[in-house]
Amino acid sequence: MSQTLTGIAASAGIAIAKGFRLESPDLTVEKTSISDVEGEHKRLDDALATAKGELEKIKQHTENEMGADKAEIFAAHLLVLSDPDYLDGVRNKIKDEQVNAEYALDEVSNSFITMFENMDNEYMKERAADIRDVSKRVLAHLLGVKLASLAEINEEVVIIADDLTPSDTAQLNRNYVKGFATDIGGRTSHSAIMARSLEIPAVVGTKEVTETVENDVTVIVDGLDGEVIVDPSEDQISTYKQKLADFEERKKEWAKLVDEKTETKDAHHVELAANIGTPEDVEGVLNNGAEGIGLYRTEFLYMGRTELPTEDEQFDAYKKVVENMGDKPVVIRTLDIGGDKELPYLDLPKELNPFLGYRAIRLCLDRDDIFRTQLRALLRASAYGNLKVMFPMIATVDEFRQARAILDEEREKLEGEGVDVNRDMEVGIMVEIPSTAAIADIFAKEVDFFSIGTNDLIQYTMAADRMNEQVSYLYQPYNPAILRLIKSVIDASHAAGKWTGMCGEMAGDETAIPILLGLGLDEFSMSATSVLPARSQIAKLTRTEAEEIANKALQLETSDQVVKLVEERSLNVQ
Amino acid sequence: MSQTLTGIAASAGIAIAKGFRLESPDLTVEKTSISDVEGEHKRLDDALATAKGELEKIKQHTENEMGADKAEIFAAHLLVLSDPDYLDGVRNKIKDEQVNAEYALDEVSNSFITMFENMDNEYMKERAADIRDVSKRVLAHLLGVKLASLAEINEEVVIIADDLTPSDTAQLNRNYVKGFATDIGGRTSHSAIMARSLEIPAVVGTKEVTETVENDVTVIVDGLDGEVIVDPSEDQISTYKQKLADFEERKKEWAKLVDEKTETKDAHHVELAANIGTPEDVEGVLNNGAEGIGLYRTEFLYMGRTELPTEDEQFDAYKKVVENMGDKPVVIRTLDIGGDKELPYLDLPKELNPFLGYRAIRLCLDRDDIFRTQLRALLRASAYGNLKVMFPMIATVDEFRQARAILDEEREKLEGEGVDVNRDMEVGIMVEIPSTAAIADIFAKEVDFFSIGTNDLIQYTMAADRMNEQVSYLYQPYNPAILRLIKSVIDASHAAGKWTGMCGEMAGDETAIPILLGLGLDEFSMSATSVLPARSQIAKLTRTEAEEIANKALQLETSDQVVKLVEERSLNVQ
Repeated sequence: MSQTLTGIAASAGIAIAKGFRLESPDLTVEKTSISDVEGEHKRLDDALATAKGELEKIKQHTENEMGADKAEIFAAHLLVLSDPDYLDGVRNKIKDEQVNAEYALDEVSNSFITMFENMDNEYMKERAADIRDVSKRVLAHLLGVKLASLAEINEEVVIIADDLTPSDTAQLNRNYVKGFATDIGGRTSHSAIMARSLEIPAVVGTKEVTETVENDVTVIVDGLDGEVIVDPSEDQISTYKQKLADFEERKKEWAKLVDEKTETKDAHHVELAANIGTPEDVEGVLNNGAEGIGLYRTEFLYMGRTELPTEDEQFDAYKKVVENMGDKPVVIRTLDIGGDKELPYLDLPKELNPFLGYRAIRLCLDRDDIFRTQLRALLRASAYGNLKVMFPMIATVDEFRQARAILDEEREKLEGEGVDVNRDMEVGIMVEIPSTAAIADIFAKEVDFFSIGTNDLIQYTMAADRMNEQVSYLYQPYNPAILRLIKSVIDASHAAGKWTGMCGEMAGDETAIPILLGLGLDEFSMSATSVLPARSQIAKLTRTEAEEIANKALQLETSDQVVKLVEERSLNVQ
Repeated sequence: MSQTLTGIAASAGIAIAKGFRLESPDLTVEKTSISDVEGEHKRLDDALATAKGELEKIKQHTENEMGADKAEIFAAHLLVLSDPDYLDGVRNKIKDEQVNAEYALDEVSNSFITMFENMDNEYMKERAADIRDVSKRVLAHLLGVKLASLAEINEEVVIIADDLTPSDTAQLNRNYVKGFATDIGGRTSHSAIMARSLEIPAVVGTKEVTETVENDVTVIVDGLDGEVIVDPSEDQISTYKQKLADFEERKKEWAKLVDEKTETKDAHHVELAANIGTPEDVEGVLNNGAEGIGLYRTEFLYMGRTELPTEDEQFDAYKKVVENMGDKPVVIRTLDIGGDKELPYLDLPKELNPFLGYRAIRLCLDRDDIFRTQLRALLRASAYGNLKVMFPMIATVDEFRQARAILDEEREKLEGEGVDVNRDMEVGIMVEIPSTAAIADIFAKEVDFFSIGTNDLIQYTMAADRMNEQVSYLYQPYNPAILRLIKSVIDASHAAGKWTGMCGEMAGDETAIPILLGLGLDEFSMSATSVLPARSQIAKLTRTEAEEIANKALQLETSDQVVKLVEERSLNVQ
């Protein structure tokens, strides 16, 4: 009999194929005494070399298939294999305790993993996951065990796993792997992000898919509605085939919109832009017909390295993006580091509540050496295209004035040096802190634009860490409190003749779009792959309809009521 | 030449006396080998017994002088001295390593301190401070070193210290210790709270007072304005003597107000209430002429124990408070645990951002066994006085409805059992999450009252952990964003015929009071010792004046501008 599991829709589409359980190989280690220390060191070195070779290949493959930013994680894995603390730890253990390489590797890896996991810091926890992934690979070579390789699958399957590691995902063969379903993970977990890049339907966080699915049983992965149907009936199969056909049809319609403007049925234009992390992402932005970049996160430039990027390195990256975007607008956010995003070389203080701590503009105003270097790079790049600068985490008018004053100082210096800059470059702020939303009218007199960062705004307004599962029910984009804050920001900007965009996840959400349109949002910035569906949805709405729905939503009492309102009117159909 | 240091005004008043440097004794430990393990164990036991005896005395003294809740910390210290993990650790080290007791104690204490400090959790960090304080005492006995005892001071002095430990503060002789000044600490640090209880003028957080003050140099501690004047001129001394005389005069005037109603010059009445933590605090509330209790924090009932308090234990405490308050209102807040306030026996999950986590009503709705027990105790106590219940950390209307439904269920059960309850008991909520302030009009239809918790509301609205020094500049009670939120809450309650109180620190702040009065706040709840000064300040203001100032403040752009506005009008004079 068929069984339906509910999870999180992580990547759109529908897959129907046989289940393939990704089993973890047996990597049990036994401790044995050895006397030939050199021989054991040699075994270790061989295993390390093989693992390095494999990782280099995976990294190259990922770079070709998914872009440089997605391949970065393997650079981090390779770094682990060259880390002297780690390697000397293993070598010394072999020598001092006269034990076999497997045992020494396993012990040292586990102590590193425990240490990093206990650091209670997301960056360090990721390092723990890296070491786990890498040490498994080396251990498998030492034990002569074959790691399950997804690269070798040669029939159409749906992968069933507890979770997929970065190396698992990177090796997926899109011709055979039709979809995947996991026990754990969320919409922003690594495997979910990879699935969207690869356009493989995926449902994550089902909690029990590995307990439920046997090999070779037919499985439907519904990445549109977040469901997994195990052992479906013939009726169910044909229903989902139809659903897939409808989805394919919609995708074809969307593709036609790539060169169109974004307009409502009654010809009201809004801008659909995309969020990017690296210059390599621009290609996807253009392929998906985005009208601009609403958020260029500059953190990647600072990550995975041992020191700050130079002004020239940054200038090159910014220039490349604005040039490739032609006359389309590119909003570049200054460094938003700190909080859960740490840079080891900055040696930031450990904090009890990093999300309420020393991060983004707070850090940049304090460490203005870092800030000035970035601003100079941005100012220089402003001469090459339609670049706008945006400051993150602004909480008070004083902070904006300080940041703006530093920018003006650097502009004057550059002009003094005879460097070309765009004197009319727009300067805006992220609205992601409730205080800023509450006095948006005061800010509107001084900034050129607002971009609402809903991920943080919702988190602070509801006082709930969205990464914390025990309070994730409070992450409520449709809560009337959030909608009212958004409205007051948009209204304040329009009253001052300025514009408001949105670059949080909500901007690409089909339930939110009709409401945001009705509230008067001017720019929606989302993942590139969401642009065409959003354009299609907006084309089916009139502005009057959207305004009516927004006004109704503002009067409701709970998030659920708002969702119901949009669903009943079937406005959430892309 | 005189020198002025700036710090935080921690306890009101002015002290002029010779400086007395509280030096830490030399507790350097040497490692020696021993063979007589039993003898060494005996030395340890003797030192432990002496330390216990001293702590029992300090605890009793504190209980008599300052009340049971202030003595609780010494119960925690005594627990350390009975902790089997800790004691066995020291004993085993002596035996296994054949080392002296001093060395073993120091090593084991340090490893515990390091462990607790690294736990990155305020509760555990306090445990580290407890162990440090206690082990110092035992070590001093083992080394035959005398701990500097403040109890033995026999001339008038101002204590100068890096910080004061709880045991230091408890031993202060109020006849001789006229004031103190420390390098570290804030308004809510342990030593500051103790100073206010003892009514000893104090300035904390001067950063450099220990570097600046020599023994016997005259020092002025200005606990009104947060300044320390070292080696003052004759002129300065007479100026401060006058300031002290004025302050004493004001205190006399305040004392006359103890039985008065709180009214503005033009006879507008507001309620001045006090915040309490234990039933023992009621005496101070009545002595200071408070018109009610605006916040009874019930957490103390749950702390310093190994299991949850029973329904009867809670009932006894609540009944005692409401009975002692006669017909005066008592607002009791349901359990606000989690976040930085942990209960070891609940085994709460470790969180990355505890302030944005599983706490207060979130935990109570999830663990409704705990919640129901408390609600039953509250309902039963409601028959004995003017008890009102308040839920903390409400973020959505759904949460309030759930909490209210559980309360109604328990009321019906009790009525079914024939137990007396007050059917008209008011049920309100804390407004401390921005979302709740943003839709206060929706809540106002369903709740009986609001109490604005400014400490958290400011923290979330500004997205800044107020305990984090690097972002403490963002803790801005006077930021126009905060004032607007407060206004919208008060207006919403009045429109629905309900009332709004405030129980955060801001309610007793002399700069905030004129504005809050002007915004229409109905109830101000503060530390008991602030009630009379606030009553005096309010009596000097007219409502029209206050409204005018509030309206002006709402139009300003920054926190500094608001402070300046109130100062210029000299409305902040109690």
